[in-house]
Amino acid sequence: MTGQERSEEKSECVSLSPMMEAVPAPPESERVCVFGTGDMGRSLGLRLLQAGYGVVFGSRRPHSSSSLIPHGAQVLGHAAASQSAHLIFIAVQREHYDFLVPLANQLKGKVLVDLSNNLRKNQYPEANAEYLQSLVPGAEVVKGFNTLSAWSLQNGPSDANRQVYICGESVEAKQAVIAVATKLGFSALDQGFLSVARELEDFPLQLFPQWRLPLRISIGLSAAFFFYLLIRYVIYAYVTQGEDISFRIMVSLANQVCPIVSLIMLSLCYLPGVLASFLQLYRGTKYRRFPNWLDRWMLCRKQLGLLSLGFAFLHVLYTLIIPIRYSVMFWVTEHTVSLIRENRTTMFDTTTAWHDDSYLSLGILGFGLYVLLGITSLPSVINALSWREFSFVQSKLGHLTLLLCTAHTYLYGWNRFLSSSTYKWYTPPGYMLCLVLPSVVLLLKLLGHTHRHTQNNTLSVMTALSLRDELLFLCYCTLRGWLPFNHCLPCFWDQKPTITFN
Amino acid sequence: MTGQERSEEKSECVSLSPMMEAVPAPPESERVCVFGTGDMGRSLGLRLLQAGYGVVFGSRRPHSSSSLIPHGAQVLGHAAASQSAHLIFIAVQREHYDFLVPLANQLKGKVLVDLSNNLRKNQYPEANAEYLQSLVPGAEVVKGFNTLSAWSLQNGPSDANRQVYICGESVEAKQAVIAVATKLGFSALDQGFLSVARELEDFPLQLFPQWRLPLRISIGLSAAFFFYLLIRYVIYAYVTQGEDISFRIMVSLANQVCPIVSLIMLSLCYLPGVLASFLQLYRGTKYRRFPNWLDRWMLCRKQLGLLSLGFAFLHVLYTLIIPIRYSVMFWVTEHTVSLIRENRTTMFDTTTAWHDDSYLSLGILGFGLYVLLGITSLPSVINALSWREFSFVQSKLGHLTLLLCTAHTYLYGWNRFLSSSTYKWYTPPGYMLCLVLPSVVLLLKLLGHTHRHTQNNTLSVMTALSLRDELLFLCYCTLRGWLPFNHCLPCFWDQKPTITFN
Amino acid sequence: MTGQERSEEKSECVSLSPMMEAVPAPPESERVCVFGTGDMGRSLGLRLLQAGYGVVFGSRRPHSSSSLIPHGAQVLGHAAASQSAHLIFIAVQREHYDFLVPLANQLKGKVLVDLSNNLRKNQYPEANAEYLQSLVPGAEVVKGFNTLSAWSLQNGPSDANRQVYICGESVEAKQAVIAVATKLGFSALDQGFLSVARELEDFPLQLFPQWRLPLRISIGLSAAFFFYLLIRYVIYAYVTQGEDISFRIMVSLANQVCPIVSLIMLSLCYLPGVLASFLQLYRGTKYRRFPNWLDRWMLCRKQLGLLSLGFAFLHVLYTLIIPIRYSVMFWVTEHTVSLIRENRTTMFDTTTAWHDDSYLSLGILGFGLYVLLGITSLPSVINALSWREFSFVQSKLGHLTLLLCTAHTYLYGWNRFLSSSTYKWYTPPGYMLCLVLPSVVLLLKLLGHTHRHTQNNTLSVMTALSLRDELLFLCYCTLRGWLPFNHCLPCFWDQKPTITFN
Repeated sequence: MTGQERSEEKSECVSLSPMMEAVPAPPESERVCVFGTGDMGRSLGLRLLQAGYGVVFGSRRPHSSSSLIPHGAQVLGHAAASQSAHLIFIAVQREHYDFLVPLANQLKGKVLVDLSNNLRKNQYPEANAEYLQSLVPGAEVVKGFNTLSAWSLQNGPSDANRQVYICGESVEAKQAVIAVATKLGFSALDQGFLSVARELEDFPLQLFPQWRLPLRISIGLSAAFFFYLLIRYVIYAYVTQGEDISFRIMVSLANQVCPIVSLIMLSLCYLPGVLASFLQLYRGTKYRRFPNWLDRWMLCRKQLGLLSLGFAFLHVLYTLIIPIRYSVMFWVTEHTVSLIRENRTTMFDTTTAWHDDSYLSLGILGFGLYVLLGITSLPSVINALSWREFSFVQSKLGHLTLLLCTAHTYLYGWNRFLSSSTYKWYTPPGYMLCLVLPSVVLLLKLLGHTHRHTQNNTLSVMTALSLRDELLFLCYCTLRGWLPFNHCLPCFWDQKPTITFN
Repeated sequence: MTGQERSEEKSECVSLSPMMEAVPAPPESERVCVFGTGDMGRSLGLRLLQAGYGVVFGSRRPHSSSSLIPHGAQVLGHAAASQSAHLIFIAVQREHYDFLVPLANQLKGKVLVDLSNNLRKNQYPEANAEYLQSLVPGAEVVKGFNTLSAWSLQNGPSDANRQVYICGESVEAKQAVIAVATKLGFSALDQGFLSVARELEDFPLQLFPQWRLPLRISIGLSAAFFFYLLIRYVIYAYVTQGEDISFRIMVSLANQVCPIVSLIMLSLCYLPGVLASFLQLYRGTKYRRFPNWLDRWMLCRKQLGLLSLGFAFLHVLYTLIIPIRYSVMFWVTEHTVSLIRENRTTMFDTTTAWHDDSYLSLGILGFGLYVLLGITSLPSVINALSWREFSFVQSKLGHLTLLLCTAHTYLYGWNRFLSSSTYKWYTPPGYMLCLVLPSVVLLLKLLGHTHRHTQNNTLSVMTALSLRDELLFLCYCTLRGWLPFNHCLPCFWDQKPTITFN
Repeated sequence: MTGQERSEEKSECVSLSPMMEAVPAPPESERVCVFGTGDMGRSLGLRLLQAGYGVVFGSRRPHSSSSLIPHGAQVLGHAAASQSAHLIFIAVQREHYDFLVPLANQLKGKVLVDLSNNLRKNQYPEANAEYLQSLVPGAEVVKGFNTLSAWSLQNGPSDANRQVYICGESVEAKQAVIAVATKLGFSALDQGFLSVARELEDFPLQLFPQWRLPLRISIGLSAAFFFYLLIRYVIYAYVTQGEDISFRIMVSLANQVCPIVSLIMLSLCYLPGVLASFLQLYRGTKYRRFPNWLDRWMLCRKQLGLLSLGFAFLHVLYTLIIPIRYSVMFWVTEHTVSLIRENRTTMFDTTTAWHDDSYLSLGILGFGLYVLLGITSLPSVINALSWREFSFVQSKLGHLTLLLCTAHTYLYGWNRFLSSSTYKWYTPPGYMLCLVLPSVVLLLKLLGHTHRHTQNNTLSVMTALSLRDELLFLCYCTLRGWLPFNHCLPCFWDQKPTITFN
């Protein structure tokens, strides 16, 4: 193709060339085959060409397809194409896999990479890759690349999706695929045998899997406390005094539910660490696996913390709008008017002023630290922190936040704990209930801290990280994306030998 | 060089060694030439040495320059240097290109990589690379690496600038440059012929190109509503009652302009998706390109949304300071005093309390979701989301935010819609005007949703993504930096064949 | 091993296979040796296997260890293992280095990579790598990889830790290590001779080194102003009027300390740039190194700015809770009551309303910009900005923020500057003191700006970046992580030749 021809072509479709043009690979380069000329296939082909591979597309209608494929690639019929390369990417949808059956002979011994995804979980009885293997038993099927989109395939790895997961039965086939992935700039992680394929196929369909449990907890707690407070305040007032204060649901009640749920979830965030600590002390070893529920709990601590921050944020906003509410302004005016009409005087009480200001000040400082913790949970900020810094922020500052917020709630309660009028219908108010958990966590933490100082030497002589730090470290790893699959976590840990140095 | 010599050298300039020292390449390594010993040239040379290349600097004064270049590199006169390598990086500024003219013979057939940048757009009639080509017609000029700084060249690719854009006429020359770029750790993207060079040279001079349109819209809307409200409130009060309420400009007026602009911009953020949806339904196909204005609109939705969040943030702050304003405190006191003096009593109105609290509560929830949307727009958070999660947050939560904010504004209006005193000089108040667009978007969205459920099967049988999702997907790709040049976007899309499977 | 055997093994420990399984390397692949089968050694071994290396573990008890190491790796005694490879990773702790002494003969000429870290700084008199070198003088010791955790070694480079720092005496040894690092996906940076090892070993132990100075400044300023204001308000009131207003410490005093410290730190953030500017103008050249204190100051500007934002955030919260404080509500009521009882009337003062609203409005806009600056300091946002955009945001918007916040404080002072009652005990109020520095910075900036326009041509003819921009650019580079070690910064800069083009 001469330069002139190319410029003509370019003038026809100016915007096309930057994306669709690929440098033709030198003839001696390695060849791979791509079945399917859809978005996925074309994008992959383009990327392969750019990485220096020779690319042969397999198509049902090679002639009509040739206009679609990137420059530099060949397009042949499926049978002819499959002859030309050892590695074949199957970029067609599962419903159309049948066309591979007649090719079974040509595909014998070839490596077939299944890129397919499904529209929803459990759409088919078996994984696409397993189905493909059953159709072409003589080929070596490798599942992989399906977690990437056509765009990221075409444009190379971006920050987030450098990792590509593969699985398959044949070690050699997987190695060949890993080699191609590496050359395309991806980092391929072998996830095991073909039975993992289903998991890999479910991966792109996940919707916040780690947020589900924390979200359910927060919704459950909110609903429970909402009804509890509804009964204690609105219904109690209606029943005993016949007063309709239902309008309080929108702001006052919300402003009680939010801080309660926030504090409970913050303490839930630090409880598993303390529990694990005590479990290990009780067992006397740190090389035994934790119960499953504790593992799962520890892995969703970030989400618990962020939801808790969300509730705290709403609590702050609900509190700050108090003075502009109609009902509040009405009562303030009413109060002044009644003072005048009844000719009463009130005395300024310094103790109340101290108490009120301290309570507000603690809340502000606690919220400030809360926001700081939230900011350090951002992926890019975590990446900029060393492990020691992350540990300092999340453990030290985290417990300080819990302490400040708990103190804020205790000061809110103040001397109302003693007054019997607080216990309407013999039930304690919401803030009293929500203080139980954080108090327990802080107490256990204090105990564990004291205990650790006496026991530490016997428990972990050789490692720099104490147990609690290790739990946090796992969390840190998860946050940084080093642990893509949850089920990998406990095994590695479990495997840790009792003698670390040999 | 012995170890002793090196340590002596080190003691002279301790801080120098970590940066300027390079491992001398083994003699048999490939050689490249760098013209120019400025920051750019030296940094590039250092990186090339580290990657194992042999580096020959070309200099006008080889003897005086030799002290500047990294250890391990040679420095020769331009003519001699150009003989030593096939690939020559031109790291000098365009004004000095003349020195290449006498070297035209030696440079014949060589690959010249033009690294230069300009100080401003349109500084010269033609691109630097094209000018270079015209000076040395026998050489193969490739534009590239100019989007990198000397620092990033020296220290290797960081997260953000792994991508290097190149262009040029010769495929072989480009391939040679791509090979070097890859070895230096960059990912080179071929952008086409040398005519693209101007675009590449303009790239580092860009100042928020995608923010311009949204910024202009927000400034235009703010100005328009500011004057509209100025007339309706301040001037109206002055003309009809002779009252000077000009002080209200600073807070009250600002607090009306901010939410109005915010709500309009939020709905502008979701309007193009709805429009595109209807356009496609009308056309009956999703494989036709959208009008240019719609494309451009869709690409700046993130910016529209973030500016809208900024205005909402100001609105929240302006609202929260209401009770500490002098004028508000004055009137509250005045109101109480007048109640007493005129011996009036007011009744508490539960409906008003409900209305007021609901209005505030909706606003708080809407703002909370707004902030959540803003946080998920952070590059590192987007990278951590799967495409399905991003779609859920930006589409589902985005429309919910719009719904909450619109409801908040409707409740603010409440029954004032009916009162004739609202329509000063027969003009509707600002909040009424700003409700038009969000109401239309929400209505169309509802219609489209219903329609989609009936039409969906015929429109997109084979793809998992519905049309609206696809628009969002393009947006997602742009946000993740997969689409560096805007003009690439529609072409790829346009090219999509009507038959996706073959 | 047959497929059947492997599946059996898998069923025993399902969760194990994804992490511990590695593709056995083909026999002809390069071999490396790993001493130590702890977490670090096993993780490194697994990664090496995945990258295609043959891995031989050296162990004291090869038989008992063989169950721990990844599939595909061999485990031998130390002596035998060291024979099998040229490159040996030492993944054991320093205390156990003695076992290498008897192996000195076998290790002659081998490259030993020291991965070790310490528990705290200055734990040992010399760096671990230097100690290792002294134990095995015949080997070539290279320090490196110690900044990585076992997890990141195992799972490959994540966004943050692609860079690996190495140092050592032998160029060839370092090159061999760089080659392995590159193949594992890391980007190795040669930091110089083995004497740098101590610095590399201290690296993972750092706890916010760049935050220390700014934190100390902020704590010092807060304490100083706290006591100053405590004396002026609380103690003054007690001494002169016998009034106990100590409750004001919690909110009122905090709300004065926060904005004062915030404004001073914001101006400290922009002062070094202005100082450097004037220093260069005075010296008449920009190619001389700055004094050390100025360098260090300039490198912690981001931290100064973020702490300043933190104080501003607290100031906003403290201000917004004013109307819900008990003492404020008490006095508002008291004021109204006294108006009635004494039958006084107050007139609405439009000037005060203007002043009050302007003051609040400026504060809100300043805080909005402040938050914007904070968001653009997030690593992922910086990465998404071009250099020109970053410069615009941090320099232009930064100075605008300073201007708005200074104007906000001036307006707060208003005409109180003139009243003698302001000067209790002849001391100026806090806000007056904190205005000095920002006023100086803004004035110098204005002067510098005027001066630059007349002098610019002589100072920097050839470079696009003016001096001030260059300072900012260094800051930008530091933020993006291009300059990992502080001591590298001035040297490069210093080296800049007086003639940039040759």
